[in-house]
Amino acid sequence: MPEDVVKWFQANLQYNVPGGKLNRGLSVVDTVEIILRRPLEEEEYKRAAILGWCVEMMQGLFLVADDMMDHSLTRRGQPCWYQVVGMVAVNDTGCIEAAIYFLLRKYFRSEPWYIDVVEHFLETTFKTCMGQMVDLMTAPEDRLDISQFSLERHRITVIYKTSWYSFYLPVACAARFCGIVDPSTYSLAQSILLPLGEYFQVQDDFLDAYAHPDVLGKIGTDIRDNKNTWLINKALEICSPDQRALLEANYGRKDPEAEARVKAVYDSLDLPERYREYERRAHAHIVGLVNGIPNTGELRPEVFMAFLRKIFGRTM
Amino acid sequence: MPEDVVKWFQANLQYNVPGGKLNRGLSVVDTVEIILRRPLEEEEYKRAAILGWCVEMMQGLFLVADDMMDHSLTRRGQPCWYQVVGMVAVNDTGCIEAAIYFLLRKYFRSEPWYIDVVEHFLETTFKTCMGQMVDLMTAPEDRLDISQFSLERHRITVIYKTSWYSFYLPVACAARFCGIVDPSTYSLAQSILLPLGEYFQVQDDFLDAYAHPDVLGKIGTDIRDNKNTWLINKALEICSPDQRALLEANYGRKDPEAEARVKAVYDSLDLPERYREYERRAHAHIVGLVNGIPNTGELRPEVFMAFLRKIFGRTM
Ligand SMILES: [Mg+2]
Ligand SMILES: [Mg+2]
Ligand SMILES: [Mg+2]
Ligand SMILES: [Mg+2]
Ligand SMILES: [Mg+2]
Ligand SMILES: [Mg+2]
Repeated sequence: MPEDVVKWFQANLQYNVPGGKLNRGLSVVDTVEIILRRPLEEEEYKRAAILGWCVEMMQGLFLVADDMMDHSLTRRGQPCWYQVVGMVAVNDTGCIEAAIYFLLRKYFRSEPWYIDVVEHFLETTFKTCMGQMVDLMTAPEDRLDISQFSLERHRITVIYKTSWYSFYLPVACAARFCGIVDPSTYSLAQSILLPLGEYFQVQDDFLDAYAHPDVLGKIGTDIRDNKNTWLINKALEICSPDQRALLEANYGRKDPEAEARVKAVYDSLDLPERYREYERRAHAHIVGLVNGIPNTGELRPEVFMAFLRKIFGRTM
Repeated sequence: MPEDVVKWFQANLQYNVPGGKLNRGLSVVDTVEIILRRPLEEEEYKRAAILGWCVEMMQGLFLVADDMMDHSLTRRGQPCWYQVVGMVAVNDTGCIEAAIYFLLRKYFRSEPWYIDVVEHFLETTFKTCMGQMVDLMTAPEDRLDISQFSLERHRITVIYKTSWYSFYLPVACAARFCGIVDPSTYSLAQSILLPLGEYFQVQDDFLDAYAHPDVLGKIGTDIRDNKNTWLINKALEICSPDQRALLEANYGRKDPEAEARVKAVYDSLDLPERYREYERRAHAHIVGLVNGIPNTGELRPEVFMAFLRKIFGRTM
């Protein structure tokens, strides 16, 4: 390949893969350590970290694509990639994706679990695309119409577009890396991590509107961006016809006064209080699931408790 | 998944996968028959055809993406998908791609060659993305500048963006399907099919400018569309400084008179004659490669001769 093409590929990866919090990638390494009950040796660490970077690359390509579809302007404190390079960004998502399978093949081809990890990435890609599809069909780019919104659709959207790749994929990668083969272990991981991811996103939606900007690290824009969030769905579920009309007239407008009117409806419906109630239940439900896991299983409760500790109680 | 999402997925596949000439998909089935030296039984045919459709899906997703990056208006006689649905088309390419691996898993997971076929698709995706990248960097959307053009870059572009998926992938799928495992057989297939694909694209470029529209089935637009074709590259290689200035001033303009001026330079450089010369050489080279194959090998010469007969002498 000519040198300018190689440089473009490098720039694409450098711009779009690092720069986030790296929680998903790090959780591959952390989970491997928890499963093995010991710190990793240098070579092991490197290989687990490569799997972690593959998860981060998966996230990176979906963020590039998502920003194009949402017509977003900035991401992680810099202009969105498509704003920098134009429509070539479509092909660049394909290049990042290809790099994942290139790395998996390069480092793990001789492992007995190679095909399984490749399948986890392919399957997760499918789920995430489906999640994007529900999201885009519920809140289409070209019209302001919250009539399609519902808590049930929100739940499906969130599980497909976030939980699979952010929570299940890192643990599935770690479990393969440790040689775990029993399909029931992977089902168990799904049964806990998908609801955990759902809670994570609801929390994210709540923080966007109610966390202090200094703590959140940004000013929330979900209301003016017409986002399909837990808050708007909860509000629509319990509001009066008058409040519904107010929400329909003001949600998704770029106008700060419209945004304030939506926020006022949220407040009058006691959404912070209802969120706390949701959070208590979600926490109890997930802790219950984790407590049901035998300490002798291949994935011990600690794998999941590590996630829970990081997520419940976060402020940004 | 909600019903509207399922319907969207179906509409995406129906709009973007059928509707072409299906040469790539059909060549999987044809090649299997040639390798096995007999017509296929019903179940075998169905399974080979599924592999063929996977190749067509791969083509479909790249066409959707390509049209977005080229800002094209129509494809296969209908508006380009992104013109119909907007930026959601980015996610729809991911959905078509996911459907490929879904089908491979559903129908072929228990085959010993399952992982190999998955890898052929993944690797071909990588090559095609690289081809798109060279193409986009040589002829960027936002500027008319043929200074980056060269026959060598054209050759790399064509092999990566067309030959791999159109010629090598179908034969590699057919060979896996027939249980061929020897890596040297796959290298041999590459050594013939990649140059064949290169010739195919050069011919495509030639026909765009010189085939009669009634025969071609469309009016060629490569000149006004600023395409990086064999003709412009050949012209730039052999033209005088004055002719070069003419080409630079008129190539890629939407103006019919500019187009006619480019065509006049092509004519005065005897490009049809030079193309015939190129074709004679390419044909002789490829036939020479095919004749070098032992009739006792896993891929007999007839596999490649079937391609050659279809391609050399086509008029559209
Ligand atoms: Mg977005
Ligand atoms: Mg989005
Ligand atoms: Mg958020
Ligand atoms: Mg095009
Ligand atoms: Mg193109
Ligand atoms: Mg053409």
